Amino acid sequence: MTRQELINQIFTKKTFLCVGLDTDMKKIPEFLLGEEDPIFAFNKAIIDATAPYCVAYKPNLAFYESMGVKGWMAFEKTIAYLNTAYRQHFIIADAKRGDIGNTSAMYARTFFEEIDLDALTVAPYMGEDSVTPFLQYPGKWVILLALTSNKGSHDFQLTADAKGERLFELVLKKSQQWGNEDNMMYVVGATQGNMFADIRKIAPNHFLLVPGIGAQGGSLEEVCKYGMTKDCGLLVNSSRAIIYADKTERFAEVAGEEARKVAEQMALLLSITSHAKR
Amino acid sequence: MTRQELINQIFTKKTFLCVGLDTDMKKIPEFLLGEEDPIFAFNKAIIDATAPYCVAYKPNLAFYESMGVKGWMAFEKTIAYLNTAYRQHFIIADAKRGDIGNTSAMYARTFFEEIDLDALTVAPYMGEDSVTPFLQYPGKWVILLALTSNKGSHDFQLTADAKGERLFELVLKKSQQWGNEDNMMYVVGATQGNMFADIRKIAPNHFLLVPGIGAQGGSLEEVCKYGMTKDCGLLVNSSRAIIYADKTERFAEVAGEEARKVAEQMALLLSITSHAKR
Repeated sequence: MTRQELINQIFTKKTFLCVGLDTDMKKIPEFLLGEEDPIFAFNKAIIDATAPYCVAYKPNLAFYESMGVKGWMAFEKTIAYLNTAYRQHFIIADAKRGDIGNTSAMYARTFFEEIDLDALTVAPYMGEDSVTPFLQYPGKWVILLALTSNKGSHDFQLTADAKGERLFELVLKKSQQWGNEDNMMYVVGATQGNMFADIRKIAPNHFLLVPGIGAQGGSLEEVCKYGMTKDCGLLVNSSRAIIYADKTERFAEVAGEEARKVAEQMALLLSITSHAKR
Repeated sequence: MTRQELINQIFTKKTFLCVGLDTDMKKIPEFLLGEEDPIFAFNKAIIDATAPYCVAYKPNLAFYESMGVKGWMAFEKTIAYLNTAYRQHFIIADAKRGDIGNTSAMYARTFFEEIDLDALTVAPYMGEDSVTPFLQYPGKWVILLALTSNKGSHDFQLTADAKGERLFELVLKKSQQWGNEDNMMYVVGATQGNMFADIRKIAPNHFLLVPGIGAQGGSLEEVCKYGMTKDCGLLVNSSRAIIYADKTERFAEVAGEEARKVAEQMALLLSITSHAKR
């Protein structure tokens, strides 16, 4: 999906919600456990109920890998379902990969050619040749970790060099020599509210993928205040607060309701803030 | 496997070779493609031929994931085979994972409880809570990326802070607050020869996992000169130069020969250098 297609989706649907498909066998409604593929059954129901209120889906691969072969099958089925029934949604695999060049190239082939995702999260520690193999696919995206939502983000990401430039700022700058606004986004945690202004100084137009709303405690208003651009420039993810909002037979319906509530807030913030930035 | 058990294996077998099982469908001998599971057939033959000359195996997960469900099945079968037939070998999944705490905990459960590996490579960018979930399993190890073997390692890992401390040094120092010599190793590329002295100043006794010998051009002598300790303290990996040394029906035999040659060099270096460090 191109940048312009994504922007069009956001302004047409008036939402920039990404639903995180962090599907855990221990947390899905019990009655689904009798299904042949409970994970896929859960995902399909969640997707059908939330699709009108979001523009993106983000399965975190850790959850699928933790179930071994069965998990991978459920992951691939979920992506195939999205690619068939909801082609206009942006599909992100939250994988946080990154390896030496020939290995990253292999990951890129898997995720972009074989599984046909739109984007993959990538860890920057190994530098240029670990990232660039993912940038060779038109319409596909790297989402590079910049400032993450967790407590440990303070351990290395905020370390300043001799000129006072922090590691996440160096990542934002240097990576712009490898990719651009059309094939690269950054992960910035919602828990880092006041940092969004600093990030927008270095990456004024890039899309940011923002985890940490909901269960992790980030504020949507603050993220929009400092992070939104005239093109929106944000994909805000919510996982647990939506997909596990209810554990009865109504789980999908309630997930849809929760997504709708977030989307309503987003419509308001989008109309006020993105206009103000023009 | 405990640190002492690993050291015993190294000095008993007089080798600190780790064979990288970077198994690629496009590179294995053609006649294997008729097998029901060509990847596992290749791995099993390579393992049987090289086991006397190495103390560790390291499948890189990227290669297995690139084959989707079939790849995961071959990976799990390979680990199960190692755990049954070669229990004294140290098994590393080169996965370079690292995510927020609850997700890292999920990865840890997968790799240490379900698949029963000895060690997992982990990327440090997300800090403490992305690493510590892997340290909760007795006898299991985190191998943290410190200074990698690729060109891109220079992009961020060598960035110095205001005190002149480089990022890889900060990773070595800070991570010693989370783990210790009994449950943590570091990845240091063989291509970084002269850096081993700097690393030993900060991590004098930790085991180092050293990729980059062979196809990537690192020197075994240099690594040993600066990196070896009295307990050896090194696991040196070779992948392509061993497993793809031959593509005929003799592939396994030739791989065994190549491993034996490396092990002979290692025996010599081990006897000279580890004694000199006592």
